[in-house]
Amino acid sequence: MDFKTEFKPITVHPEMIEVKSFEMIDEEMGEHSFTDEQYPVVRRVIHASADFELGKSMLFHPDAISAGIKAVRSGKTVVADVQMVQVGISKPRIEKYGGDVRVYISDADVMEEAKRLQTTRAIISMRKAIKEADGGIFAIGNAPTALLELIRLIKEGEAKPGLVIGLPVGFVSAPESKEELAKLDIPYITNIGRKGGSTVTVAALNAISLLAEKD
Amino acid sequence: MDFKTEFKPITVHPEMIEVKSFEMIDEEMGEHSFTDEQYPVVRRVIHASADFELGKSMLFHPDAISAGIKAVRSGKTVVADVQMVQVGISKPRIEKYGGDVRVYISDADVMEEAKRLQTTRAIISMRKAIKEADGGIFAIGNAPTALLELIRLIKEGEAKPGLVIGLPVGFVSAPESKEELAKLDIPYITNIGRKGGSTVTVAALNAISLLAEKD
Repeated sequence: MDFKTEFKPITVHPEMIEVKSFEMIDEEMGEHSFTDEQYPVVRRVIHASADFELGKSMLFHPDAISAGIKAVRSGKTVVADVQMVQVGISKPRIEKYGGDVRVYISDADVMEEAKRLQTTRAIISMRKAIKEADGGIFAIGNAPTALLELIRLIKEGEAKPGLVIGLPVGFVSAPESKEELAKLDIPYITNIGRKGGSTVTVAALNAISLLAEKD
Repeated sequence: MDFKTEFKPITVHPEMIEVKSFEMIDEEMGEHSFTDEQYPVVRRVIHASADFELGKSMLFHPDAISAGIKAVRSGKTVVADVQMVQVGISKPRIEKYGGDVRVYISDADVMEEAKRLQTTRAIISMRKAIKEADGGIFAIGNAPTALLELIRLIKEGEAKPGLVIGLPVGFVSAPESKEELAKLDIPYITNIGRKGGSTVTVAALNAISLLAEKD
C-alpha cells in the first residue's frame, strides 16, 4: 500500500484525549449518589455518549459490579444482542480469563426458528443464549424484545445470567423493558428512560472488564 | 438446537415499534428548520439516540442529501471509521447498487504504517481510504483524529469524497473536528457539540440509503 508517508505531527494523542475527557467528566458531573465501584461505569457511559443526563439515569443492582467482575474473571461468556455490541466490546480483557463474546441473532437456526414461530430473531436468540451461555454477562443495547424475553426466562426460572446489562434505546418498549429489569433481584445494570444504545452498552461492559483487571 | 418452542404471543412487533416511534418523534419534534429532504435523516438520528437535542444539533451542507443519494445509487464505497459503524450499516441497500462497506482501521498495512510513523491507525486508515474509495461516503462516528485527517486531505486537494458523515462523539477533539468539517464547502452531514457516535452515524447513513431507494 502506497501511503502518503510524509511525517505530520500528531495533534491529538488518543490516550491524552481519554485522560482529559475523564477529567472534564469528573469536573462537570457534580454531586451524585453512585458508589465508588459504580462510578467508573457511569463515567465510561458518559464518555461514550457525552450525555450527563444518560449517565445520571443509570441504575445498578447492589451486586451488579461484583457479579460482573466475577463473571469476567471466571471466563464466562458475554452475550451481545446485536453485532454492533459484539464488535465494540474490548476482547483481550474477556479472552485473557477464558471468556468469549457471542451474538446469536444472525445464526441460521435462530432465523429458522423465528420464522417458524412467527416471532423475532431477538427473542429466539435469547432462548438459544440461555442454553449455551447461561451464567454469562448479557449485554443488550438494541433490542427491547430480547431484554423482555430474557426477563421472562429469568422470572420463569429458565435463565440465571451472571449479570444483565440492559440498555436498549428507544421510544417504544425500551423504557418499559428497563423498568421490568430493574424490578428483578438479580445483578443488573440499566437506566431510566428512552436513552441507551449499543455504544453505551459497550462502554458499560468495557468498564466492568477494566475493573476485573484491577488488583 | 433445542429451543423452547411453546408459542408465546408477540407483545411487540418491531415494525410497529418503528412506526409508533416515528409518530412520537414527529409529535415531540416541534418546529424546526430542516428541509423535507434533511428531516428523514434527523428523525432517524433521534430514533437511534432518543435525543432531540442531538437531532436538533444536526448540520447539513446544502448538497449533502442529493450527493449521498447519488453516491449510493452509483454504487460508491462506504468507508466506516470503525467496525461498529461498518456492522451497523444496512448492507442490502448499498450492495444492490454495487457498493460495499469497508473499514480500514484494522488492516495489517494500516497498523504497520501507523507504528512506523508513530501516529494513529485512524489517521492512516483515512490515507488508505482515499486511495481506494475516494468519491465514496465516509461515515465517521468514533475517531475525531480520522475526521481531522480527512479534512486535511480534502483541504490539500488529496481527497474528494462524495459525502462525509462526520459525527464523532466526545469531550476533546470531537466538537472541534465537526466545526472544521462544517467550514468546508463539500457535501457533509455533521452536528454541533460533543454528542454523536457510532449508532447515530449508522442511523444517518441508513437514512440516506433509504432515501436512495425511493422513487
